[in-house]
Amino acid sequence: MTIRYETYGTLSENGDNAILVEHALTGDAHLAGYHTPEDKKPGWWEAMVGPGKAFDTNRYFIVCSNIIGGCSGSTGPRSINPDTGRRYNMDFPVITIADMVRAQKRLTDHLGIRKWLCVAGGSMGGMLALQWAISYPDSVNSIIAIATTSRVSPQSIAFNWVGREAIMGDPTWMNGNYEQQPMRGLAIARMLAHITYLSDESMRKKFGRHLQDSTDYSFEFDKDFQVESYLEYQGTRFVERFDADSYLYITRALDYFDISDTAHGDLSQTFANIHMPFMVISFSSDWLFPAYQSQELVKALLKCGIDTTYCNIESSYGHDAFLLETETLGSLITSFLTNRYVEVKA
Amino acid sequence: MTIRYETYGTLSENGDNAILVEHALTGDAHLAGYHTPEDKKPGWWEAMVGPGKAFDTNRYFIVCSNIIGGCSGSTGPRSINPDTGRRYNMDFPVITIADMVRAQKRLTDHLGIRKWLCVAGGSMGGMLALQWAISYPDSVNSIIAIATTSRVSPQSIAFNWVGREAIMGDPTWMNGNYEQQPMRGLAIARMLAHITYLSDESMRKKFGRHLQDSTDYSFEFDKDFQVESYLEYQGTRFVERFDADSYLYITRALDYFDISDTAHGDLSQTFANIHMPFMVISFSSDWLFPAYQSQELVKALLKCGIDTTYCNIESSYGHDAFLLETETLGSLITSFLTNRYVEVKA
Repeated sequence: MTIRYETYGTLSENGDNAILVEHALTGDAHLAGYHTPEDKKPGWWEAMVGPGKAFDTNRYFIVCSNIIGGCSGSTGPRSINPDTGRRYNMDFPVITIADMVRAQKRLTDHLGIRKWLCVAGGSMGGMLALQWAISYPDSVNSIIAIATTSRVSPQSIAFNWVGREAIMGDPTWMNGNYEQQPMRGLAIARMLAHITYLSDESMRKKFGRHLQDSTDYSFEFDKDFQVESYLEYQGTRFVERFDADSYLYITRALDYFDISDTAHGDLSQTFANIHMPFMVISFSSDWLFPAYQSQELVKALLKCGIDTTYCNIESSYGHDAFLLETETLGSLITSFLTNRYVEVKA
Repeated sequence: MTIRYETYGTLSENGDNAILVEHALTGDAHLAGYHTPEDKKPGWWEAMVGPGKAFDTNRYFIVCSNIIGGCSGSTGPRSINPDTGRRYNMDFPVITIADMVRAQKRLTDHLGIRKWLCVAGGSMGGMLALQWAISYPDSVNSIIAIATTSRVSPQSIAFNWVGREAIMGDPTWMNGNYEQQPMRGLAIARMLAHITYLSDESMRKKFGRHLQDSTDYSFEFDKDFQVESYLEYQGTRFVERFDADSYLYITRALDYFDISDTAHGDLSQTFANIHMPFMVISFSSDWLFPAYQSQELVKALLKCGIDTTYCNIESSYGHDAFLLETETLGSLITSFLTNRYVEVKA
């Protein structure tokens, strides 16, 4: 199994400063900075990672690991199956968030890290962080779970279902055995998901009913409104960088995520044997993983006597706020991590 | 041009008791009752229309008219173009809500109705009602606009865009010239739209994370959760009764709906020359046409000194509440219509 990862900063001699940052659904290991001077964009959480930033590389050793099932350098459905010499495609096993964490545990051992100072992530990355606390409580000193949930809701499952139907309904998908991406289906899945990452309010602010290229309605079916151009652009860019089969596997892993499952639905039972501090952060306009879902999580943590910091950040950016509200988020993470680091040093 | 319509009750001698009920996106003229004893379901607003009900057929003459562009008996893209002897398909002109109302005005004249006691509708039906007030203010005595908006939001435009992409991306759509429906694409569009008709809360209450046929996850891509089976069922049923090209045209009409347009964005200017009473009703959990959009409308009406009744009904059903909260809705409509009828009689 291959796991792509990147590291930032330096591991301390006693290994007490290592932080694992988890990426979201379509993210990757390229957390911050540029690989080459030609790169148009830095890593996906550039504002949060670097010298003096929240994930301060002067102080901490930051690891960002791609997930299994992904398509950004780690083993996934498009990898070669050594048994057949051909791509797995849909023969790849259905994976869960717990499987992704299990793979990351092997990376952790490989890196010689005995205990993470913190495992942190937003969206699906938050689920990975929560799963770390449950699967390997002795290997984690603290958890930061941002814009996430302890159990994926039927509304999210429904959106994932429709996205997968679009991919699997594209005849160029060929039951997963494509050579060329099922571009149209994957773009539809992405455009749909993208709506759930924004909010009604942010879309009104960003696009309103403004037209893209004209002063009056075209009364045609081609894109007319700015929001239509935006979605089409997002869909087109996405198929250039992400794989359709990976999209199927990772969204399915989300559907199955419910950490109350093994405790017969009782979330506080889930945390019964866990003692590390948590920071939970939600955003007021996030309707994909709404604040009430973070609050359910926080209540269960508090019921278990776990040291829990919670903040619902006022923002109009919707779910995407975890990538955009970097100033507020940065200050919260800075102080949480500083406290954890002081504790560990003590 | 053909317009399919149904009538219920009896037109009074002086024609003062006629009410036009407008249907939603995929509705039709079959408002209430059964056509044959074999019918499995009554008309779409059965609970609201009949003797002693809100739209009381002992008192009122109720007309429900299908829209042009539809596929339920009225002229639409699948009708035969007399110039070519073949279906219009995508040669059908792009239509607007105002065009639909213009066609209904001809029906009104045909029926010999000088002035509607009320034009009422929910969702797109509410837009048609608002458009009646603006297009033919002298032909309407009052308006009931339920779960609707004065301008379709970018979020709604975005969902419509993705739905149309699914239809037009289905290779069996054949640029609209299909003999067999593009079933997969149309089902995807319907499933997506269906999510927007429910609410996060109603989906949690109705489905939760319950599995359909098993006690444990299948870890496969076929439907596993109840919500997935439900969506698949809705998609399958829909393609049996609704036409893909009609779906394209009607959703496009929604996109273009903005009654502030002709008044340079000033909604109160839109109502400057209108004097009839309005009743506006929204539902607390409707996120397709949220309550704030009804409230914008109400503010503009009040600014113009228009007699306006507004109620935001507390409901967890989401947008679908306008079809489900029949008791509360019925009592509001009953008293509003009674007042209008008394006024007209006076």
